Amino acid sequence: MKIAVLGVGLIGGSIGLAAREHVEAAEVIGFGRSPERLARARELGAIEHAAGSLEEALEGADACFCCAPVGSLREQVAAALAAAPGDCVVSDVGSVKQGVVESFSDERFVGSHPVAGAETAGVEHARGDLFQGAVWYLTPSAASSGILYERLHRLIVCLGARPVPIDAQTHDWILAGVSHLPHVMANVLVSLAGAQLHAEGEALPRVGPSFRDMTRVAGANPAIWTDILLGNREAVRGQLRAFGRSLQDLEGWLEHGDRDAIDRWILDARDSRQALLEAELAGGPVHELRMTVPNRPGIVAQVALALGKAGVNIVDLALAPAPDMRSGAMTLWIAGDEESQRARELIDGLGFPIAEG
Amino acid sequence: MKIAVLGVGLIGGSIGLAAREHVEAAEVIGFGRSPERLARARELGAIEHAAGSLEEALEGADACFCCAPVGSLREQVAAALAAAPGDCVVSDVGSVKQGVVESFSDERFVGSHPVAGAETAGVEHARGDLFQGAVWYLTPSAASSGILYERLHRLIVCLGARPVPIDAQTHDWILAGVSHLPHVMANVLVSLAGAQLHAEGEALPRVGPSFRDMTRVAGANPAIWTDILLGNREAVRGQLRAFGRSLQDLEGWLEHGDRDAIDRWILDARDSRQALLEAELAGGPVHELRMTVPNRPGIVAQVALALGKAGVNIVDLALAPAPDMRSGAMTLWIAGDEESQRARELIDGLGFPIAEG
Repeated sequence: MKIAVLGVGLIGGSIGLAAREHVEAAEVIGFGRSPERLARARELGAIEHAAGSLEEALEGADACFCCAPVGSLREQVAAALAAAPGDCVVSDVGSVKQGVVESFSDERFVGSHPVAGAETAGVEHARGDLFQGAVWYLTPSAASSGILYERLHRLIVCLGARPVPIDAQTHDWILAGVSHLPHVMANVLVSLAGAQLHAEGEALPRVGPSFRDMTRVAGANPAIWTDILLGNREAVRGQLRAFGRSLQDLEGWLEHGDRDAIDRWILDARDSRQALLEAELAGGPVHELRMTVPNRPGIVAQVALALGKAGVNIVDLALAPAPDMRSGAMTLWIAGDEESQRARELIDGLGFPIAEG
Repeated sequence: MKIAVLGVGLIGGSIGLAAREHVEAAEVIGFGRSPERLARARELGAIEHAAGSLEEALEGADACFCCAPVGSLREQVAAALAAAPGDCVVSDVGSVKQGVVESFSDERFVGSHPVAGAETAGVEHARGDLFQGAVWYLTPSAASSGILYERLHRLIVCLGARPVPIDAQTHDWILAGVSHLPHVMANVLVSLAGAQLHAEGEALPRVGPSFRDMTRVAGANPAIWTDILLGNREAVRGQLRAFGRSLQDLEGWLEHGDRDAIDRWILDARDSRQALLEAELAGGPVHELRMTVPNRPGIVAQVALALGKAGVNIVDLALAPAPDMRSGAMTLWIAGDEESQRARELIDGLGFPIAEG
């Protein structure tokens, strides 16, 4: 199978590596605007050949992945469709789908979005296992060919991902809620706190681990995020309005001192968070264990190794050092009731008290 | 020095432990509504004696810390002032200050707020070093006695904390911005996403590490947070309005496709985040290093031990497993230019590529 990859960054490079590793008789041809990056991709084994032009890359291709940034995807897909053979499936990997999907009623086009690789960028970080177990949305249109859709689906399974078909509009609305909106919030939080820093100077407190966690994504690459926010502007605006309504509810309760409503709202949030954690992961409900530990490198190792040895899967882990840097709160997320109980006992055995709730 | 601690939970218990450890000739008397908790505090060495009544606890006391939850603090401070000797400094440790400070014009009262211990609760987690290096806000009023203020200040230094005097109103405004507002945002984000989960069922994506980080504090103890939000309602409402204005700005830019404004807004957020990280910590600017690592317990240990051995201080650490759970993004925050460079080299030497930016 001949696979054309247009744009060889983190995602394009990882598609190439995964295809060369897992797809039988795969031949991966790359093309991109930067000859240096293309050469680097070839050095790293992400592509077999570097094409001299987009047309050359698509010659005889069975499948094509358009991996340009969201802002120039439409253009790239149009060029790919113009050059691709009649039986080549053309997909893109953008994180906003409705605009690009509605632009093409070509039977060869099936939009898609692998949910992976948000933390880094560049072909240097491409990995053949980037998509292992990842959700990979497929957003076919009414015009999409069934045979070509099936080919793309199977190809994505070979790359290690889990194809999830979804209509483009629903996709964009969901992503606006769980990805784009959180980015917006992080930016607003740091900007407001930053303004306070200027106003109050030294009085600003150590912002603390929860603020740091919440704003970790703030200020992320504007070259990417401005495109995403603009590309998904209707859904993002819809989510902003829903968010604004929730804030207004809260303001009303605060104004009228409505203790019951605020209690209920916090408990609802707790339930939602639990439901989201459970929906996210197989292996039973996820338990959150919090403990206080001395802040020495060996401790994290000790806890991790003890649980690893007992076969307990640490879904996620967060350390929040106390101001003295000598101790800290450690939070572990453990999937499964039994595993969580075992983790509790093991940690208890290490002499670290686990917080309730 | 005789110290009365009213309410022996995490903070009260830690004050007791720290005082008994670091204050010369300290005699710590505890009182609380639950005889069981009081007995537990005594067992753990957090208090020397358990008083049978608030009055007994305050007999001959030189200092008194009121550690009730925010909602019942005013009542407790009033009772303490009624029972305390004429030369006893009475303080509280609530995270909202203006209401309680304005309620008392007694020269013996100096409000305060140690910024520590947010992650756990209960005397079982009390530690003598909880306040080491922590900011401890002092919010004296015009009525506060200078001599008693000095006594409290010195006592707090002995407990290991850094006293930071601040007027109560500024305190509440700042905390609303860096603590209360983030909690509100986390709750709203999970509630909106939770509603989507019900609406979309299976289609909801793995919410991913950044969403998880942002909503870690969502649904936190309503018994505490409803009191805090209501206790600081004016500042929280002010912050909500400022937040709402920022969201409206963004909505306008999205509506008009104002790419430059969005770019600028994201870059401002990046600058603010950097400034906040730097203001928070001594030891030079904090660098953020992101890398991809295999998701095995040994890896965190390996990285932590390598940096620990080289004397590099890991300010904070976050792991975000990839969907396959076999690899993950690891983020380290390192204080100081040199340390960060050393960390880069060490991690590079371990064979993990560090992401730029």
